[in-house]
Amino acid sequence: MKLCRFGVAGAEKPGLIDAEGRLRDLSGICRDIDPTVLGPQGLTRLAKVDPASLPVVNESQRFGVPFTGTSKYICIGLNYSDHAVEAGLAVPSEPIVFLKATSALCGPNDDTIQPLGSTKLDWEVELGIVIGSRANNVAEADALSHVAGYCVLNDITERAFQMQSSQWDKGKGCDSFGPVGSWLVTADEVVDPQNLRLWLDVNGRRRQTGNTRTMIFSVKTLVSYVSRYMTLLPGDIISTGTPPGVGMFIKPEPVWLNVGDEVTLGIEGLGTQTQKIVAHSI
Amino acid sequence: MKLCRFGVAGAEKPGLIDAEGRLRDLSGICRDIDPTVLGPQGLTRLAKVDPASLPVVNESQRFGVPFTGTSKYICIGLNYSDHAVEAGLAVPSEPIVFLKATSALCGPNDDTIQPLGSTKLDWEVELGIVIGSRANNVAEADALSHVAGYCVLNDITERAFQMQSSQWDKGKGCDSFGPVGSWLVTADEVVDPQNLRLWLDVNGRRRQTGNTRTMIFSVKTLVSYVSRYMTLLPGDIISTGTPPGVGMFIKPEPVWLNVGDEVTLGIEGLGTQTQKIVAHSI
Repeated sequence: MKLCRFGVAGAEKPGLIDAEGRLRDLSGICRDIDPTVLGPQGLTRLAKVDPASLPVVNESQRFGVPFTGTSKYICIGLNYSDHAVEAGLAVPSEPIVFLKATSALCGPNDDTIQPLGSTKLDWEVELGIVIGSRANNVAEADALSHVAGYCVLNDITERAFQMQSSQWDKGKGCDSFGPVGSWLVTADEVVDPQNLRLWLDVNGRRRQTGNTRTMIFSVKTLVSYVSRYMTLLPGDIISTGTPPGVGMFIKPEPVWLNVGDEVTLGIEGLGTQTQKIVAHSI
Repeated sequence: MKLCRFGVAGAEKPGLIDAEGRLRDLSGICRDIDPTVLGPQGLTRLAKVDPASLPVVNESQRFGVPFTGTSKYICIGLNYSDHAVEAGLAVPSEPIVFLKATSALCGPNDDTIQPLGSTKLDWEVELGIVIGSRANNVAEADALSHVAGYCVLNDITERAFQMQSSQWDKGKGCDSFGPVGSWLVTADEVVDPQNLRLWLDVNGRRRQTGNTRTMIFSVKTLVSYVSRYMTLLPGDIISTGTPPGVGMFIKPEPVWLNVGDEVTLGIEGLGTQTQKIVAHSI
């Protein structure tokens, strides 16, 4: 299933994208795409619903984050071997774990707000893992059973803020730096999460191209690994790192995002996002 | 006011500690100590309640986190000048910001679970700032008006996990690494947050002694600073750094916590916490 939430920010309704790509209203079936829906029982129940029985939503709609309940947005740094080469850094021996503030979460096509003082705004297309059920110290063999599905993420980053101290979180957690979606694609529809093409364009020019097969630590390794350090809860997100092509490493000069720029990104089978860069309103 | 939440984990009731130190039940007045209570209006409304009109709770009670709604637990690294000396590190020119996973939150006297593989479990008594109202790009002069109050925090840390990569979050976010409370002391009762004594004992031996006057970045500076990078929401916590005396820097050998150890810590006017170290249950 392709699950989503649509409508005005803060008042989204649950929805489903049918086989013909039409948005259908799920609000007669469930209150929201929340942690009660994301677990195996909730998804099994939803899968029994005939999409044809759901009202089609014809009007153009804003999409929100396609699920609720995210208490943690966990990021993995430097997780593509070809990105490590681009960065001139050694392949890490263990996953590099950091956190994105959940106040950064926003809809997939919401504007990206350039923060006050920002000079080095950058992009990172990433495969997002969405946790479906509580995971604490789970083995790799069991890890995927805790995954509700996958989504497109842009791990938007302000590099000057990120590099200002040793800790990256400040440059990762600004408001609007966490677009998610458009959809949560349930795990049963993703045949192999380690063979998905990713891409990102800035103003129509291709900047990132990659495939999840060059991940250093796979989806199941990451779920298992992170669950050894912190309990994963339904709705939590693991962002699995970015392939080559971020603005910071473009030669001969880095390329930064500016007000008016448009970023479009996507992952095979998981849909696309588009953000426009806007100035802070203060 | 000294606000708290008491009872079984996950089913806490709101409470208040009266002038005689007795626990009184607030559940007839408010549903919980939640973001609706933490703002100026909510606290003004609560302040009108006569504590003598509230039922006394006589039985011994577990305390939970004294408020709900924490979407972010923001930590400031190396924020005491005397701790920077102890660490042999330069005083930072700007606050070092990182995040603790909110799944680490627990009651002030709940057991500390030593994670699997932990070899370097350490303590950090810290003054916690509790946000009362939304703060985005606020000036230092306005910062304290967004603070609901203060609390004791132990920023429990696994140093091997913390130092395993460049990013500290993994060693800060394990389950039970975030005891909060016992109380949220409202800001009106804290005459000067920059003149509070802090202390921490391990098995009855004094290990940390400090005063918030040696903070490098003050409470109002930190609220203002962090609000430039991410919107602070009611219930969010800023942990303001630790004074000297952490286990890692004890001479001639570091001292680490082990199963059976007992940690007691406190801050002048804000109460105390006690944690016992227990083994992971797997």
